[in-house]
Amino acid sequence: MAVQHFFTTLFFSLFITSLSSSFQPLASSSSPFNHPPRFPTTTNHPRSQARPNEAQAPDYRYETRYFTQQLDHFSFLELPTFQQRYLINTEHWVGPQRLGPIFFYCGNEGDIVWFAENTGFLWEIAPQFGAMVVFPEHRYYGESVPYGGREEAYKNATTLSYLTAEQALADFAVLITDLKQNLSATDCPVVLFGGSYGGSGVPLEEEGSWGSHHLRPNLGDEPIAISLLAAWMRLKYPHIAIGALAASAPILQFEDIVPLETFYDIVSSDFKRESSTCFNYIKHSWNEITSIGQTRNGLVQLSNTFHFCQPLNKTDDLWNWLESAYSYLAMVDYPYPANFMMPLPGHPIKEVCKQIDGQPAGTSLLERIYEGVNVYYNYTGETKCFELDEDPHGLSGWNWQACTEMVMPMSCDPESSMFPPYKFNYSDYEEGCVRNYGVKPRPKWITTEFGGHKIDATLKKFGSNLIFSNGLLDPWSGGSVLQNISESVVALVTEEGAHHLDLRASTQNDPDWLVEQRATEIKLIKGWITEYHQKNKVMFDML
Amino acid sequence: MAVQHFFTTLFFSLFITSLSSSFQPLASSSSPFNHPPRFPTTTNHPRSQARPNEAQAPDYRYETRYFTQQLDHFSFLELPTFQQRYLINTEHWVGPQRLGPIFFYCGNEGDIVWFAENTGFLWEIAPQFGAMVVFPEHRYYGESVPYGGREEAYKNATTLSYLTAEQALADFAVLITDLKQNLSATDCPVVLFGGSYGGSGVPLEEEGSWGSHHLRPNLGDEPIAISLLAAWMRLKYPHIAIGALAASAPILQFEDIVPLETFYDIVSSDFKRESSTCFNYIKHSWNEITSIGQTRNGLVQLSNTFHFCQPLNKTDDLWNWLESAYSYLAMVDYPYPANFMMPLPGHPIKEVCKQIDGQPAGTSLLERIYEGVNVYYNYTGETKCFELDEDPHGLSGWNWQACTEMVMPMSCDPESSMFPPYKFNYSDYEEGCVRNYGVKPRPKWITTEFGGHKIDATLKKFGSNLIFSNGLLDPWSGGSVLQNISESVVALVTEEGAHHLDLRASTQNDPDWLVEQRATEIKLIKGWITEYHQKNKVMFDML
Repeated sequence: MAVQHFFTTLFFSLFITSLSSSFQPLASSSSPFNHPPRFPTTTNHPRSQARPNEAQAPDYRYETRYFTQQLDHFSFLELPTFQQRYLINTEHWVGPQRLGPIFFYCGNEGDIVWFAENTGFLWEIAPQFGAMVVFPEHRYYGESVPYGGREEAYKNATTLSYLTAEQALADFAVLITDLKQNLSATDCPVVLFGGSYGGSGVPLEEEGSWGSHHLRPNLGDEPIAISLLAAWMRLKYPHIAIGALAASAPILQFEDIVPLETFYDIVSSDFKRESSTCFNYIKHSWNEITSIGQTRNGLVQLSNTFHFCQPLNKTDDLWNWLESAYSYLAMVDYPYPANFMMPLPGHPIKEVCKQIDGQPAGTSLLERIYEGVNVYYNYTGETKCFELDEDPHGLSGWNWQACTEMVMPMSCDPESSMFPPYKFNYSDYEEGCVRNYGVKPRPKWITTEFGGHKIDATLKKFGSNLIFSNGLLDPWSGGSVLQNISESVVALVTEEGAHHLDLRASTQNDPDWLVEQRATEIKLIKGWITEYHQKNKVMFDML
Repeated sequence: MAVQHFFTTLFFSLFITSLSSSFQPLASSSSPFNHPPRFPTTTNHPRSQARPNEAQAPDYRYETRYFTQQLDHFSFLELPTFQQRYLINTEHWVGPQRLGPIFFYCGNEGDIVWFAENTGFLWEIAPQFGAMVVFPEHRYYGESVPYGGREEAYKNATTLSYLTAEQALADFAVLITDLKQNLSATDCPVVLFGGSYGGSGVPLEEEGSWGSHHLRPNLGDEPIAISLLAAWMRLKYPHIAIGALAASAPILQFEDIVPLETFYDIVSSDFKRESSTCFNYIKHSWNEITSIGQTRNGLVQLSNTFHFCQPLNKTDDLWNWLESAYSYLAMVDYPYPANFMMPLPGHPIKEVCKQIDGQPAGTSLLERIYEGVNVYYNYTGETKCFELDEDPHGLSGWNWQACTEMVMPMSCDPESSMFPPYKFNYSDYEEGCVRNYGVKPRPKWITTEFGGHKIDATLKKFGSNLIFSNGLLDPWSGGSVLQNISESVVALVTEEGAHHLDLRASTQNDPDWLVEQRATEIKLIKGWITEYHQKNKVMFDML
């Protein structure tokens, strides 16, 4: 049932809410990304239907606690503190005398309960390590918001200003330190995990609860930072933790460290490897959409073709709806059926292309495309028509982060990509952030603070006990570490893997390579702990 | 001419300005440190006399530049930027093609021009390395103050709140990154240096210029953080610099990592090793002062004995005046004559003890003490009477730092120390900070952020290319790293060394061990650069 995290392109998600009102519409054929893409929204997917297997949350037991955190760790401005929520389970922990490990999940942008429930790997392996499990919530998400509540915290750039990765890492460092002291466990080794959101269609950072009727999937709006945090935490706080498993962490997706076309090239090649015909159909569809959209009644015609409940206002909305589907399909191109945004078959891209390619001769190009994305948006066949969410509301936490430090530039190559050509333009990006958030990004800050250029040399010299796990079908893998750096900075790459399954609970459907990947991770983590114990001259038998 | 940095005890210096109005006076004999010590002040030491050899600044050529810095690197609060001053010399730099090194001095709490002039080692070795030399100024000091000027910047806890070590390190990281990009020198290796203030009697952080008539030496009020910064920078920004020379960096002087008595024990043993009689005279003098102070006319009598221009208001002032002398003498117990706070003979503690011990039989205890400290306060014999500065004004940058993150607890052991017994009391400390600065310290933050406990393990695993140089006579050495951690984390310890001479310009008086120490440092730094060049497959002959 492994279901995965929803990264969409930063760039896309950023512009979804931030730039909708700011940019002049351009001809769609020249630069789709200057138009605000929309989150895909389905009308007939209330949670109970969309996520049938997840209605019963897994039976992970934990205690919920709260810890008082500084809002700004790096200044002494008089600011209100806030309560950071964390979930903790010590029932398998062998305690401080035996130096029982502490498994610490670097909470990402959303409700920590969700992450805890979707990171089965930790719960499954904790007993054999005699480990305590801790899931701290990321500041500004879930219940861990300052200023008394989400509305106040997200009010403006001033209240949002402390939503940064460095502050979140400092929260973790302070929490771990305090926790260990309180448990007389200062000598117990901490292992970090960075996973990603695995929920489905849940507006994680919206006020709405799971039962919300305004079901607006947070498609990629969030979960990038997560595994970034585990990797960065390991690098910046080596005295705090003995190792980290950073699953699908695109630590190189900044500035020009990897080619800007990487993300969309991988999405495209995921389609091409299934079928070059399919790839070409998609590639040619964009202009076709634009052409039809420009004709009389063209938007109505497109709306009919794609079964929208209401007529489209502009072709860009359709472009974005399609782009979202393709990008997510690439992220979750898993080898077995899964239920993430919506239920999907195994190898969903293969299924999409089968539909696109397999229509009878004479089927129009856009009809083919519709049949393809229908696999993504409506695999259960229950959706009668699709609705585009025209009113994304409120500031999004991740969009704020993208408009401040998490600037991940992306372009589309006219040759290798099936997407319309696009060249990232930083001025436009900045302008949008200033207009919509009242904030100027610092696009070079992340690499200044955490490194990135020549990461090999840095990791070789300073990194250790660090696992970068990636599936090559995942478009985020292109921005991660895919080669072993040293004996203890290891890349676990799965050719048929997509956006990290490894942190999810095991299932009967797990392919061998996934079973092996998890076994390797367990072995490496055991190695770190054994080495630590040996150094601390404490006899400790792995349970 | 080697002259050294002026660290006084954090604790002492902190209370100088911060606690003067806040604590109830206690019986001096029980807890001297609950009383505000005073900076020692001499009346007849205008700069031209006090620093005869430094009147002509050394002929180090540099260009002065300014760089726009964020006031808070870790939030996106809308704040004014500020101009960070830095001095740069590229005349010996062999340039980017040959991967010419960049020697980067981590500016400390004071005017950077002073540090540049007092860190001759960098200037002397730059040519043989073909290195560029950069001296950035620490935020909130010298000209690099936010809010338009020192008065505004030091107005209150809000304006001071961004005066933290993490922000200063981020300034350095951003500056180096930008500088390298502008010079097309992104591949050039950076070597960090942490030295310390070497000026003399100059109120570094006062508005006053060198010619100020209000000469208030910043005795130890400042320069701790400096070399701390070089070490921490190396640990937190390993991607920025290839190595660091951290001279006299007490990175373990936090919490209870080293025994709280360490600092004063070293001061005491510096005296004891010269003469146990001397040690005992000093040890017994405190009660004698208190006894006399409690008698009728006792304060006048004490004032006469110690040649104060005005009568003492309380015996505490005398205690503090003496403590300052002893602590500084320990820091600058150099083997040859030097001119720091005031001109001093070589082995000044030996000279002080010679005076204390050598007075004719029948000389009173306090007369002996006076003759001893007179060596420190009045070696030239020009001072007719001493004046205690009764009005230290304004917030001090270092005191602010001590009241926020730089909490270095210190006690005095009744057995091993020649000082009155004292047990550090954190509640009192905090109370003083709240009352005087409106700020609550975060005493555990430094070790959470930078580590400290089990530093060996952390440095062994993550540190490299790091030199900790210390002289064992220096009371700060007890809080530093005194043993080699690994092949490339090296402790250079000089038994006869005091507070680091190694970064100063060489002189004809340098003892062999100092010459050797500097040669070793050069050799190690060369090794780092050679290794870096080899890794970068660039032929580069050391010039």
